[in-house]
Amino acid sequence: MRRRLLGYFPCINWSRSYNRKLLASDASAAIIVTILVIPQSLAFALLAGLPPEAGLYASILPAVAYAVFGTGNTLAVGPVALISLMSAAAVGDIAEAGTAGYAVASVALALISGLMLLIMGLLRLGFLSNFISHPVISGFITASGLLIAASQLRHIFGTDISGDNLIELAHSFWLSAGAVNAPTLMVGLIALIFLYTVRNHLAIGLSRLGIDARISGMLVRSGPIIAVVVATGLVATIGLEKQGVSVVGEVPSGLPALGLPGGSLALFQALLVPAFLISIVTFVESVSLAHKLAARRKERINPDQELLGLGAANIASALSGGFAVAGGFSRSIVNFDAGARTPAAGALTALCIGLVTIFFTSLFYYLPHAILGATVIIAVLTLVDIRSIRQTWQYSKHDGAALLSTLIITLLVGVTAGILTGIALSLILYLWRTSRPHSALVGRIYGSEHFRNIHRYKTETDPHLMILRVDESLYFANARYLEDRIYTLIVEQPQLTDFVLMCPAVNYIDASALESLEAINGRLKDADIRLHLSEVKGPVMDKLDKSTFLKALTGEVFLSTYRAWCKLHIAETDNPETETEVKTPT
Amino acid sequence: MRRRLLGYFPCINWSRSYNRKLLASDASAAIIVTILVIPQSLAFALLAGLPPEAGLYASILPAVAYAVFGTGNTLAVGPVALISLMSAAAVGDIAEAGTAGYAVASVALALISGLMLLIMGLLRLGFLSNFISHPVISGFITASGLLIAASQLRHIFGTDISGDNLIELAHSFWLSAGAVNAPTLMVGLIALIFLYTVRNHLAIGLSRLGIDARISGMLVRSGPIIAVVVATGLVATIGLEKQGVSVVGEVPSGLPALGLPGGSLALFQALLVPAFLISIVTFVESVSLAHKLAARRKERINPDQELLGLGAANIASALSGGFAVAGGFSRSIVNFDAGARTPAAGALTALCIGLVTIFFTSLFYYLPHAILGATVIIAVLTLVDIRSIRQTWQYSKHDGAALLSTLIITLLVGVTAGILTGIALSLILYLWRTSRPHSALVGRIYGSEHFRNIHRYKTETDPHLMILRVDESLYFANARYLEDRIYTLIVEQPQLTDFVLMCPAVNYIDASALESLEAINGRLKDADIRLHLSEVKGPVMDKLDKSTFLKALTGEVFLSTYRAWCKLHIAETDNPETETEVKTPT
Repeated sequence: MRRRLLGYFPCINWSRSYNRKLLASDASAAIIVTILVIPQSLAFALLAGLPPEAGLYASILPAVAYAVFGTGNTLAVGPVALISLMSAAAVGDIAEAGTAGYAVASVALALISGLMLLIMGLLRLGFLSNFISHPVISGFITASGLLIAASQLRHIFGTDISGDNLIELAHSFWLSAGAVNAPTLMVGLIALIFLYTVRNHLAIGLSRLGIDARISGMLVRSGPIIAVVVATGLVATIGLEKQGVSVVGEVPSGLPALGLPGGSLALFQALLVPAFLISIVTFVESVSLAHKLAARRKERINPDQELLGLGAANIASALSGGFAVAGGFSRSIVNFDAGARTPAAGALTALCIGLVTIFFTSLFYYLPHAILGATVIIAVLTLVDIRSIRQTWQYSKHDGAALLSTLIITLLVGVTAGILTGIALSLILYLWRTSRPHSALVGRIYGSEHFRNIHRYKTETDPHLMILRVDESLYFANARYLEDRIYTLIVEQPQLTDFVLMCPAVNYIDASALESLEAINGRLKDADIRLHLSEVKGPVMDKLDKSTFLKALTGEVFLSTYRAWCKLHIAETDNPETETEVKTPT
Repeated sequence: MRRRLLGYFPCINWSRSYNRKLLASDASAAIIVTILVIPQSLAFALLAGLPPEAGLYASILPAVAYAVFGTGNTLAVGPVALISLMSAAAVGDIAEAGTAGYAVASVALALISGLMLLIMGLLRLGFLSNFISHPVISGFITASGLLIAASQLRHIFGTDISGDNLIELAHSFWLSAGAVNAPTLMVGLIALIFLYTVRNHLAIGLSRLGIDARISGMLVRSGPIIAVVVATGLVATIGLEKQGVSVVGEVPSGLPALGLPGGSLALFQALLVPAFLISIVTFVESVSLAHKLAARRKERINPDQELLGLGAANIASALSGGFAVAGGFSRSIVNFDAGARTPAAGALTALCIGLVTIFFTSLFYYLPHAILGATVIIAVLTLVDIRSIRQTWQYSKHDGAALLSTLIITLLVGVTAGILTGIALSLILYLWRTSRPHSALVGRIYGSEHFRNIHRYKTETDPHLMILRVDESLYFANARYLEDRIYTLIVEQPQLTDFVLMCPAVNYIDASALESLEAINGRLKDADIRLHLSEVKGPVMDKLDKSTFLKALTGEVFLSTYRAWCKLHIAETDNPETETEVKTPT
C-alpha cells in the first residue's frame, strides 16, 4: 500500500540520487529553456484568446506539478500550439474572446481536462488513447497547423480576422482586407522571412562553417528570441506603435493569485466533450514525445503515471490562472539539447519564468503582436506533413481515407468535429474490416496432417465433409457474416453430412457469436448436417464449457482437424486405412 | 443496368409465378391478420402518443410498400411496440403530446428514418447494424418491455402517468395515485388476468383436449380481439364510460390524406440521432425476424434489399400520416401461421385494414383504453428475458456488463441514452480486448520444424535469438502495446542479437501499426539487435512492399520461422548441423 502510494510520486526516486552535477546540468538547461520559450508562451496565450501573462502563468506551476508526478526526464510541460487552438475553439463557442467569462471558461477547461487525465491515470485508462489512430492524429495535426497559421494572419496584417475554420477565416479576411495596417505588415513579413531563413537555412550554413550540430541547433532555435529583442527595441526606439503597430502593452507583474476557478454547472457540462478530446490529444502527443526523448537516452517512461503528471500539470495551471497545457515539442527539444537530466530541470525552468514574471514583464511592453504571430506561424508550419499524407494513402486506402476526412473536416468545420469524425471513421473502417473476416474452405494436403485452402493447394476433399477455416476472432461485428457464409456454402454441396469449423485463429467468441453458432447448429440440424469444431483454443474452450452450446452441438469438438478428418472421412468407408492409402498418391 | 434496377423490385420475381392457389392462402392469412392485429395497431398508436387512427394508417401503405420492395415472404410490417416507444421518447423531447406539432414530428421522424434506411440500402451499409451486439439488443429490449409496461399503467389505473424512464414514471405514478378510477382499474385488471391466462394456459389446455397446435395457437392469439369485442359491447350496454372509464371515442373514418410532412429544418436536425437509432433497431429486429421466419421454410432473404423495403415502408407511413414502422413479431407470426405464402399477403392485409378504416371505425367508439393498455402489457412482457441476462453474464463478464449497462441506462435514463451507452460500451470492450493481443515467446520443438510457446512446451531456444508470435492483426489499438511488450522483452535478454516477429495470425497491418514497426526497428537498431519477420501472409506482404519499411528493416523477412531459425541460429556456430543434432535428444 505504502509502496503503491510512493509509486505515484516518481520524484522520490530520482531525488534520492540527485547531486550537484545533475543540478548544474538541469539549471543551465532551465535558463536556456526560459529564454528561448518565453516568446512562444506569450504567443500561445494569444492563440488561446487570452492575455499574454496567462502564457507565463501556464509555464510555472504546471512545470512544477509535472516535475513531481511525471516520469519523462526531459519532457517540458507548458502551453503548446495544438492545445491552445483546441482551447480557443472550445471556449469560443461559449464566451466572447476578451471577456471575463472567456478567461473563466479557459481555466475551467484546463481544470476539467486535468481531472479527466488524473482519473484516467488512477483507473489506468491510458488505453483509451488507442482509439485515435496515427492517421487521424496526423491529419488532425496537419489541419490544425494550417488553421493556426491562418488564424495568426490577423497579427501579420494588423486586422481583425477570426473564425473556427478556414471558411470563417477566409470570410473574415475578405471583410477586413481594406483595413490592413502597412507598418504592421512590414514588421510581420520581415519577421517571417527572418524566422524562415534561420529555421531552414542557418543550420546548413553553420555546419559548413564546421560548427557542432548541437550548438547550431541552439542558435537556430534562438531565432524567435532574437526577433523579439530586435523588434521590441526597434518599436520602442522609433515609436512604431504610434503608426498602428499593435504591441503587447502592459503585462501585470507578479505571480498569479491561486484559487479555484468559478463557473456554473452548465459551463462545466458544456466543456465536457472538448475537455475529453483535449485530454486525449494531450496524452497521445505528450506521451509519444516523451517516449521518443526517453528512447534517445535508453530511458523508459510509464504511460499511466504520465497521465497523472499531465493531469496534475493541468490542474495546477487552472489553479494559477493558466490554461490547458501539454508536453511541448519545441520546449522539450530545447530542454533535451541543453542537457537537462531530470524532471528537476522543469521545476527550475518554472523558477526562472517565475522570476521573469515578477521582475521583467515591463520589458514586453513594446513587443509587437506581429512578431508573436510570425513566431507561431513558423513554429506550426512544421506540423504540416504533406509527405505522410501521400505515404499513408499509398500504404492503405482505409487509413488514407481516415486521414483525409479528419484533415478536411478539421479545416472546414473545426477541431472538435474533425477529431470526432476521424475517431468514428477509423473505428467504423476497422469494424468493417473485421466484420468480413477472411475464411477458407480447406482440404487435406495429400499424405500429410495439414489442411490448407482448397483454392491454393492441391488437396484431398470429401463431398460429405466440408471444413471451413475462419481467420478472425468471432464477435458481434462478424457473427452474422459467418452465418451468411455458412448458409451459402451448404446450399452448394447437397451431399454434405458433416461441417467442421476450424478455429486455430479464433482467439475469442463473444456472446453474439455464440448465439450465431447456436443458430448455425440449429439450421444445419434442420438440414441433417452435423456441426463440428476443431482446433479450438484452450481459453475459448473454457468459455464454451460454461454455455449450453456444447450440449446442443450435433457433432463433436476435435483437438485437431486431422482427427476430425480421420473420424468423419473414415465413417464413410468400410476399410478406411486402405482407402486413405489408395487416395494419397493421386 | 436494367437487371440491377429490376433487382430493386423483388415483387417482379414472385408475381410472375403468382397463381390462384397462392392468392387463396395469402387472402385467408390477410383476413386473419387484419382481425387479430387491429387492437395492437390502435394500442401502439396510443403508445407512440398519437390518436388511434394513426395506428390504422401505419398498417396500410407501409404494408403495400414492403410488399413491393421487401424479400421476406411472411414478414408483416406495421406499428411495433419497441419502435412506437422510441418514437414517443424522441418526439416527446420536442413537442407536447396531443398537439399538432407532436403529430408533425412523429411523421417527420418516420420520414427521416425511412430515408436513412433507403440510403443505407442503396449504399449497402447493412453492416452498420453489426455495431449493435446481441447483448446490447437483448438488454435494450428487456428494458424497453419494462418501460412500455410501466407506461401503460396509466390506462389500467385511469390516471395521468407519463415519463421517459422508470424514475419519471414512478414519480408521476406517486403524484397521481389519489386519482385512480375504480371502474377503469376493474376493467383493466380483468382484462390483464384474462389475457394472461389465455396466453400462458390456454394452449396447454387445448393440447390436452387434443386440438392441433396451429389451431390452438390461433385461438391463443385471438385473446386480445375477444377482450376488445366483449369489453366494447359491455361498455356500450351498461354505459361504463359515464363511470369514468376512458374510451377511444370518435375515430375519423376514411383513408388518410397523402402528403409530405411539414416541419422546420431545426425539427429535422433535432430528429437525426433518434431517427438513426430507430433505423438501426428497425433493421436489426426486422431482419433477424425475417431470417428466422424464412429459415423455417428454407427460404432466404436479402438483408440489403430489406433495408430498401423497410425504408420504403417508413416513407409510405410518413406520406399517409402514420409513424415509424417495422417488421412486427406478433403480426408476422400470425401471418406465418395463417399460411401466408408471398409478400402479397401484406398488401392484402393493407386492403382489409383499409376497408376497416373506411367502414368500421365507429365500432371502436366504446373500446376502453384499459383494454388496449392490458393488450400492450401482456404483449410486451414477452420481450422481458431474464434468463438470457443470467446466461450472458455467466458466459462472459464483458458481454454481461454491456447488457446490464444498456438495461439499466435505458430504464433509468431513457431509450436513446440506453442504446448509445450499449453501443459505445461494447465497442470499447472489444477494442480493449484486441488492444492487448495474446502473444507468446516461442522456441523450436526439439527435432521438428514447429515453434511453440516456451512456457507450455519443452523447446529449444537461443540466448541470441528471440521469437515472438503475435495472435492478432496489428492495428492502431494494439500497436503501442506491441511496442511496449517488445521493449520490455529485449531488456530481459542482454545477449540478444536477433529478434523475429512471427506473424501467422496477423491478417492486417494498418498505418499506425506500420509506424510502430518502424519505431521498433529503429529502437532495436539502436540496441544493436536486428529485427526479422517470419510467416508474413501474402496480402500483408503486398502492403509492406508498398511502404518504405522493408528498406529500413535491419533484418530479413523469412517465409517460415524454421528458415529464420536455421539462418540465425546456425550463424552462431561453426558446425550448425551437428550442433542441432546434438541438442535434439536432450
